[in-house]
Amino acid sequence: MGSVRARPRRATYIGDERLVVGDAVIVEPKAGEVRIDVAYTGICGTDLHILHGAMDHRVTLPAVIGHEMSGRIADIGPGVSGWAIGDPVTVMPLRWCGTCPACDRGFAHICQRLNFMGIDSTGSMQSSWVVPASNLVRLPADLPLRTAALVEPAAVAVHDVRRGGVQPGEKVAVIGGGPVGLLVALVASAAGADVTVLEPDDRRRSVAASLGIKVLDPTGDVVAATEEWTNGAGVEVAFEVSGAAAGVTTAVQLLAVRGRLVLVGIHSAPREVDLFRIFWRELTLIGARVYEPGDFDTAVQLLSTGQIPAEALISHVTPLDNAAEAFAILERGGAMKVLIDCQPA
Amino acid sequence: MGSVRARPRRATYIGDERLVVGDAVIVEPKAGEVRIDVAYTGICGTDLHILHGAMDHRVTLPAVIGHEMSGRIADIGPGVSGWAIGDPVTVMPLRWCGTCPACDRGFAHICQRLNFMGIDSTGSMQSSWVVPASNLVRLPADLPLRTAALVEPAAVAVHDVRRGGVQPGEKVAVIGGGPVGLLVALVASAAGADVTVLEPDDRRRSVAASLGIKVLDPTGDVVAATEEWTNGAGVEVAFEVSGAAAGVTTAVQLLAVRGRLVLVGIHSAPREVDLFRIFWRELTLIGARVYEPGDFDTAVQLLSTGQIPAEALISHVTPLDNAAEAFAILERGGAMKVLIDCQPA
Repeated sequence: MGSVRARPRRATYIGDERLVVGDAVIVEPKAGEVRIDVAYTGICGTDLHILHGAMDHRVTLPAVIGHEMSGRIADIGPGVSGWAIGDPVTVMPLRWCGTCPACDRGFAHICQRLNFMGIDSTGSMQSSWVVPASNLVRLPADLPLRTAALVEPAAVAVHDVRRGGVQPGEKVAVIGGGPVGLLVALVASAAGADVTVLEPDDRRRSVAASLGIKVLDPTGDVVAATEEWTNGAGVEVAFEVSGAAAGVTTAVQLLAVRGRLVLVGIHSAPREVDLFRIFWRELTLIGARVYEPGDFDTAVQLLSTGQIPAEALISHVTPLDNAAEAFAILERGGAMKVLIDCQPA
Repeated sequence: MGSVRARPRRATYIGDERLVVGDAVIVEPKAGEVRIDVAYTGICGTDLHILHGAMDHRVTLPAVIGHEMSGRIADIGPGVSGWAIGDPVTVMPLRWCGTCPACDRGFAHICQRLNFMGIDSTGSMQSSWVVPASNLVRLPADLPLRTAALVEPAAVAVHDVRRGGVQPGEKVAVIGGGPVGLLVALVASAAGADVTVLEPDDRRRSVAASLGIKVLDPTGDVVAATEEWTNGAGVEVAFEVSGAAAGVTTAVQLLAVRGRLVLVGIHSAPREVDLFRIFWRELTLIGARVYEPGDFDTAVQLLSTGQIPAEALISHVTPLDNAAEAFAILERGGAMKVLIDCQPA
């Protein structure tokens, strides 16, 4: 019945901004499920929001969170075919209802009753995770599992760039140079775009620059700089990844006539938007959320070829037993991708 | 040398909310130009804004405004071919520079140095108007000139519906039931959509209903009504034509997953927009301004076939000498399209 590990562990959010790590029980996969030995789980901005209680309306305590992961199949439930013990995998953590109007119209990934694994149900911040086999994404044998932990955020970026319809030669501004912003910049560059990232944090700008991405400090006159860069036209596409009110304002200012603004960042409050300029320049604002299955395939490919240099984006790797410290690192700012090593010590 | 009329007149905006009507001088068309005997000029919301001084930064006083018109060619300048005295015409009132980034990228209609005739240069609220022949739009001989005065606003609606990508069978909400809102509703219906107009004014709702358009009073619970109408899905496309902050909020609330919001109305101040919902439902906001040449051809066709019943939209026709009164009628609210008859009494 597959491998059994000596001492399964898990990190659990117990409310009140507290994350505790303790022993876990190995769960047998039921029909249609597999159990994964988790190798790495990345921490997402959403996980930080969960820890701060901002998503308590969706999370059932105690909760194992985490949804950016890589691992190997450790056990296979009845009725699952096409998979073998030891197969390297990641998980597309979306479970849709199949019957709501969104599913009905072909947009299951934004199902009106979407279950996002790691938020609405158990996630991967544990050494052993049972998931439906239908959520598995196959990984190439030669893709390191550290790298593969970035497939999920890379799929977000692939989806964002696809929603923006980025074309070769187009000028693109990415507002926000955290992990998602840089992934969007790298995916847009791979699509042939000429990309600049706007990021106020010096360390994050340095990481971007080290990857060959042009950077601007948004505390400077970015409108003038963009005018010069684009010969007065503005950028064809802007990605708002910061989630800040100022990011939206800047993005709208930078766009060329008929430019597209992809809304990636989460804006928890309504934002004042210059609708006159959207009208005047015939701009398009495009909401982009999670991903569709094809985005995972593209993400795996971009990580495999090195067009997304995953190692350069991983700033910290922390053992599962120090999960709380991993969150604290992200909290302090300046870090890029922080991974939790979920493998036994 | 064409027709010469006894007593050419013109309405002139002289600033300070004042419009005066007086004698005009017949101007000979120069090379590439024609002179038109204007039949009718419609009053647009923009003309009202001009009268209120809101566009004094663009208008050179004294100004003959007006850009929704019909008429017949009265004189033809040197070098103009393909046109004859007496040809019925309207004018696409856009003059672009041809060299800016917008023109360069194929979006001349929203040229960064656009000259909008009737705002940035002389308009049609006069009995005789000289325009470049390249701005002429040919009218069918059997299209009444009263009807033809609606070609320009109908072209706006055609452009809006095209920008929204409206498909047969889609459910569409139009926020605002003035002339442009009803034209959008009629064009969307002609495209096969299932349309509801939201309009608080009783008289305007009556006009819409008399045209067979479904109406809702937005002071009621339109979210619940739309949920019921669309079986919980929301509308595929919303057109924000009101220019009001509440119109934007309502439009965003009514849209289905992956729905499109076309911004038609002019929002003179930034508006608070629920960007979270745009992200969550992967909505698209699309700015739509003026029109492209093909939109005029479609508008002429829709008016010719009666799919846009122009006469039902014309609530008042006022002689040029009473132009100020025509503006007052529109100001008082409840009117639909108000035309000024520019022909000699």
